[in-house]
Formats: sequence, structure tokens, C-alpha cells
Amino acid sequence: MENVKNEPMVIDQNELHVSLNLNVRGIKQSATLEINERTKKLEQQGKKVFRMGLGQSPFPVPNQVVDALKINAYRKEYLDVKGLLALRRSVAGFHEGKDLTVFDPNHILIGPGSKALMFLLMLTFYGEIILPSPSWVSYHPQAKILGRPVTFITTTAKTKWKIMAADLEKKIHEQNDHNRPRIVVLNYPANPDGLTYSEVELRELAEVGRKYNVIFLSDEIYGMLHFEGQHLSIARYYPEGTIISSGLSKWCGAGGWRLGTFSFPSNLSRLMETMSAVASETYTSVSAPIQYAAIRAFECGINVERYLWRVRKILKALVERCVSILREGGVDVLMPDGAFYLFIDLSRFRDSFATKGINNGMEMCNRLLDETGVACLPGGYFNRPNDELTARLALVNFDGATALAKVETIAMDQPLPDQFIDFYCADVLEAVHRIVKWCKTGSRVN
Amino acid sequence: MENVKNEPMVIDQNELHVSLNLNVRGIKQSATLEINERTKKLEQQGKKVFRMGLGQSPFPVPNQVVDALKINAYRKEYLDVKGLLALRRSVAGFHEGKDLTVFDPNHILIGPGSKALMFLLMLTFYGEIILPSPSWVSYHPQAKILGRPVTFITTTAKTKWKIMAADLEKKIHEQNDHNRPRIVVLNYPANPDGLTYSEVELRELAEVGRKYNVIFLSDEIYGMLHFEGQHLSIARYYPEGTIISSGLSKWCGAGGWRLGTFSFPSNLSRLMETMSAVASETYTSVSAPIQYAAIRAFECGINVERYLWRVRKILKALVERCVSILREGGVDVLMPDGAFYLFIDLSRFRDSFATKGINNGMEMCNRLLDETGVACLPGGYFNRPNDELTARLALVNFDGATALAKVETIAMDQPLPDQFIDFYCADVLEAVHRIVKWCKTGSRVN
Repeated sequence: MENVKNEPMVIDQNELHVSLNLNVRGIKQSATLEINERTKKLEQQGKKVFRMGLGQSPFPVPNQVVDALKINAYRKEYLDVKGLLALRRSVAGFHEGKDLTVFDPNHILIGPGSKALMFLLMLTFYGEIILPSPSWVSYHPQAKILGRPVTFITTTAKTKWKIMAADLEKKIHEQNDHNRPRIVVLNYPANPDGLTYSEVELRELAEVGRKYNVIFLSDEIYGMLHFEGQHLSIARYYPEGTIISSGLSKWCGAGGWRLGTFSFPSNLSRLMETMSAVASETYTSVSAPIQYAAIRAFECGINVERYLWRVRKILKALVERCVSILREGGVDVLMPDGAFYLFIDLSRFRDSFATKGINNGMEMCNRLLDETGVACLPGGYFNRPNDELTARLALVNFDGATALAKVETIAMDQPLPDQFIDFYCADVLEAVHRIVKWCKTGSRVN
Repeated sequence: MENVKNEPMVIDQNELHVSLNLNVRGIKQSATLEINERTKKLEQQGKKVFRMGLGQSPFPVPNQVVDALKINAYRKEYLDVKGLLALRRSVAGFHEGKDLTVFDPNHILIGPGSKALMFLLMLTFYGEIILPSPSWVSYHPQAKILGRPVTFITTTAKTKWKIMAADLEKKIHEQNDHNRPRIVVLNYPANPDGLTYSEVELRELAEVGRKYNVIFLSDEIYGMLHFEGQHLSIARYYPEGTIISSGLSKWCGAGGWRLGTFSFPSNLSRLMETMSAVASETYTSVSAPIQYAAIRAFECGINVERYLWRVRKILKALVERCVSILREGGVDVLMPDGAFYLFIDLSRFRDSFATKGINNGMEMCNRLLDETGVACLPGGYFNRPNDELTARLALVNFDGATALAKVETIAMDQPLPDQFIDFYCADVLEAVHRIVKWCKTGSRVN
């Protein structure tokens, strides 16, 4: 899930005075608005832009799932606010099969995107939201809109941008308020860095969570895009306090369909039921044809599994190749465990950037766009300090359908041919090469 | 738009203590939960229930629109948070053609149901919400969840359950605060009564609105179901202060698809842009395949117009018939101008009801269900006094597809045959007859 944004805010000359909620005054349509406007301008000038800003899966929705939508196009009834029971059953089956976790279908909520469910959770829950830094762009604005206090736990590349159990416990101790109601948001494989937690790390976090009665909102939207298909959920170690967030957007290529899922343990059923009551006064239920089609996706038949196998194969090869090019160019970047993001750190070039008037991430990304055509997002959007020279690259500017069709001609157990990434993901590689050259030479790369 | 609700709240024995927002504590999944549970129980006992509770269109989505969804099933991209531009253009064209109102497509928001857009409006706006009594079930809970103050203007059958301009001005005067930021919600043809405003009434309301800088949220979701196709919007008389709410749910039979629209005047663009920014942090955008399909609906080609013509013909004949049966039976009810609801008043039977222990609308509806099998909603759900003996009947318990197919065999300019309603809407008539008999005899009707 990413913010999608388009036009700038154009205010009419005759604008009436309207009284607005102070929590929402002045918020922008999304964190990625500005870079998108610049992208548009450059494209209108006939310049090539490498769109690595928006985190949208490049792959098509699996055929079987699209067919299920066609078959169910006539469905018109309002469905249960929690979601179609058959779908909630298939989501429960999905988590049982993939994560070895058991959820009662009556404790699963289907929402119009997991982002909408997170908002609903923050609206319903009264307490503090603890976020890692870096973390996904929308958690923080959601909390601000709802007036919920946010505490950040700043991570470093040393812990692979992950919250360690000791960090969490330390933060709780500092607050001198052990019983404060808290939700800790975890996201793994993570946006913006693709890194995930080890079993030991999850077990230790679970222990601290249990000790302080913390609720983990475990955002596992990229779980199925773990390169080895070995995603591990913290729900296995702290089932009673973990809500798993998932959906169709990333692993199923269906971001635009808008379907997310929250799976609750039975002892959080009051929270879930209250959320569902609030949902009945807001979005009512998720689009019926989409819900019927999603059953097919969460059932994960052999065709969906083959699709996932191939998607992972492409993404892993692409990510490895990009990491290697960047590292050879002196860029600091960690090799992800899944998904399609790289979180790069260009601090080594700080001095030479300073001579060009680049002193923070936003300036860096703007100049990178102007001088190389590569559009990406500064770390500041992901709750990093604004003066940090980090950025997220979404390795999605290639034709996923073509690449997937080609992979279907290669035996499942065979690696991709040497030239596969060069040919099918040429623009991604070109962009990464441009970044490296730009960092080294400091000059325009065309 | 109606609340859809299913299972009761079952709380686990080991339920954790979770800190909840005081504005949402104890809210029920929807106002219609209780009657639905009773319905289920009765049906499980093998009893016939006449489901006149939920206000869902009985007609299928027009073929052309379903086909458009099939064709666009592969669409997977995140769309602009405001909505697909082509769809916003067709919504603007729809309002221009139907309502003679002009909206810039850039000032139209597409949301996952107009209910979700109303919630977003109340979240973004900081001010008072003025509601008519009676009015639709969800306006008030939305305001409560968001902590917005609500003022009711109580109407009577004399003004056909409508707010008169003088009532609005009087209420504003009483508040001794002329400049208070206010949204007045109008809904016409109205849920729960199907009545609509005349041109004079709209002009007078517009005048008061303009005088006090009031924003009208004009909920015209039933506009296309005006029996004569002569829906009139207040936006014609107060364009600068009116937001028109519409969607696919009622006239297009696609309640379960979840697509609503808000059309803003250009001088409310700041409000609209802020709502759109908040939307980008909540539902992101409406499901892409649904948006592409909705273009076809709002274009209102000749096939959609024929569909509407036929739907109105059936509804008008059905409503006239039911009103006549009810009036003959001594029930007070006003003849609606559109939609598929009747708001009945059984006050004349108050004394005889009292002897049976029925003293308020809820008791009345519960007993009606138990003793006749007719499920409907008490006026209290629509913000009427709880002790009032009013109720809403949704005349939707018939097979809309079959009725529509039959009407297709009848020339457009010909009236329906005498026995049409008897045959195709038999359950609706049976239910209405049972109500009359129950009121008169006070005894069980099977």
C-alpha cells in the first residue's frame, strides 16, 4: 500500500471560509505528491523518468483470480461488515497453511485495503502507537489525523533497520508508565528496506510484548514475497497479542483492488467487534465481486503458488543484481529478504554532495530526479531524520507481465538465464547505474 | 446505503483488557442488528419472515454495467485518490444532464460508498451537524464516533417529514450563534419516507443556507428513483454551498459494489482537497475494476435509461398499491415521491396496542415480527422519539430480476397489467395485508 496522488491543491479564488479539524489542516494529499509533480513536469518536457517512487507490484493479478472476478461480476448484495464468511474462512486457511497460526474466521475482518483497517484500529483503540524508524509512510499521518500519540524507536543499519527487543523494553522503561496502552507496529519484510526478523528476534520481541501487554500490529503485507518463501510471523510466538495485517496488494499484484485483512486472536475479540461496528458506520463492507474473487487468491491453489514462485525468483535476482551494482559503486545498502524495495544510504557522499548544495534527503532526491531522471523517495518520508541521506528505491519500473511470461518458459528448478534481468528489467538496472555514476561524478547523467 | 450486520458480539472468556476510544465504546454493529437476529431465529424455527428491514435494491445491476466490470476485471493499478478522471468526468456529465448543475471533475470525489465519504466529511469538517428527524440511520452514529455535535430538527407528517426553511432559520436563531460552522444534511427522496422537496421549498432552504453560510450535504442517492424521473437538486438554487452525494447503490442496484460520489462547488475546493488528503491516508482509492465499470453506469446510455424507466414503473405501482391497502386499513402513511420505502404511523392503534403491552416503536416492531413475520425498523432508528409508533417498511422483498424481465415485455408507454404487482410482488402485498390485519384484530396473523 502506497499513497497515490495526482494533482496539486488548486484553491479557488472565491474559496469560502470553511472550519476544518485542526488535526487535518494543511495535510498534503500524500507524502509522494511533490516528487510526482516534478516527475510529470519532466515527462512533459520529453525527459525519460525512472519511476521508482510508488511501491506498486509490477506483476499482473494471477489469471485465476481475474477469472474469479469476471464470474462474480454480477454480485450486488451488501455483504457482512466483517467480510464474506467464505473469504474469512479462506484467509484463516491461508494463515494456517503459511504461518502455522490459527484464527477463528469470526475474528477476521476484511477491509477496503489494510490501510483502511489500520486507520480503523487507531480510531477504535485509545493509546500510544509505537513505530520503528524507518517505517512505511502512512502509519504516522494516520495517528496524527486521529490525535493519537506516536513514539518512534530509531533503528540503524547495524540491526538491519529492525527494532530489537531491548530497544522496545528500553523505550517502555523510559516512559515510566509500564501499563500504558500501546500498539507496536511491526512490518516485515519491511517497507522501505525489504528486511525481515529472524526467529530469535521475533521470540524476544514476543517476550517483551507479553511482559508489558503490548498489542503488536504485525503488518505482513509482503510476507508472501519473502524470497525463499520462508516468512515467519510473530503471531507464532505471541498469538494472544498479535493482529496480523495482510491483503492482496503486494503478493497478488492487486493493489488497485483494495482488499486487506486483519486477523485477531480470540482474546482481542472485543476490539475486533468494536472495529467492526465502526466499520459498519463507515465503509459498510468491501466490494462484493472483489471479495468473491479474493477467495480464489487466499486459497492459494497450485497456479497461485507457481505464480508466487516465479515472482520471487524474478524479484530476488533483480534485487541481488541491484545491490551488487550499488555496492560496487560505494553505496551502502543491505540485501533485502523479500519484497521489491532497496533502502540506500548515500552518507559516504555527504561532503561531495555538500559542495553541490545537497544537505538533506529531499534535496538529494530532487537533484537525483533532475540530473538522472530517477524518481525515488527520501528517508524522511519513512520517518528518518530529514538531514539523513537515505532514500527508498522501488524496483518496480519494468513490465512484470512480460517477465512473468518469460519465466514460465524456464523450468521451476532452473535459475534465471544470465541476461534475464538485463533484458526484462533494463530500466531498473539503468536507473541504478545512473545513481552510482551520479554519486561518483556528481554530474548530470543522461 | 444500509448497515449490514450479522453475528452478535461474542466475547471470549479470556478477553484482554483493551483501552478503547470513549466515542466508540459500546456501539453496536448497526442499528438493525437486533431485528436481524430475531429474523434468523424465526427462520431457523421454519417460520416465514418478510424481510422489509434492510434497504437494498431488489433489482440486478444493469447488464451493460456488469459487462463493463468483466471487461475491466484485470485492472490492478492504484487509481488517483479522488477517483479515475474518466469516471469523475462521467459523474460531472451525469449531474449536468440530470440535475442541470455544473461540477468540475476535479471537484468530485469517488469513495467506497457515499457513507464512507460522509464520514470523511464529518472528520474533516469542524462544526455542527444538523439532521432532520426522521433521517437515515447512520448520520448520527458517524457524528458520535467523531465527537461532532448534532442538532435535530424534528419534522411532522404535516410537512411530509421535511425541514421547512422557517424551521432551519428558527433553529439557528435559537442557538444565538449565527456564524457557527454548520452542515445541514438533506436527503430526498428520503430514507425512511420516500418524500422529496418541491422547487419552492428548495429555493427557500437555499435562501436560508446562503444567509447563514450553511453547507448543505445533499444526499441524493435516491434521486434517480423519483417515480416521475423529476428529481430536483438544491444545488440548482444554492450551488456555492451544496455538496451532492450520490452513488451506484440504489438506482443502479449495486449497493454491494461500494461506490459513492461527492460533487463539490469550486468554492469548497479546500474542504474537498483536505478530504482527499485524508482519504489518501485511509482507503487510498476505490477498487479499480469497480471504478472502470461505474463509468458505464454514470454515462446513462439508452439501456440504463430503459432500466430506470422500468424500475420506476414497478416501484411506483408497488408503492401506490401498498399505500392504498394501508390507508384502507386505517394506517397513516404518506404517498412517497420515489425510492422504495414507506414510513408508517400506527399511533391510531396506540390504545389497543397498550392493552397488549406495546408502548413504543421497538416493542411494536418486535411483536409485529413475532406475530406476523414482518421484519421492519422502528422510527427510533431514524432519530424519531422512541415512544412514537412509527416504522419503516422497505418494499424490497421480491425478485427484482424476474419483475424487470416481465416489464421488458410490456411497451414503455403502457401501464402495468392489473395483476402485475399481485403476481411479482406477492410477498410485499402479503406483508402489508398482515400489518393491517394485525393492527385491526390485535391477533397473530399467519
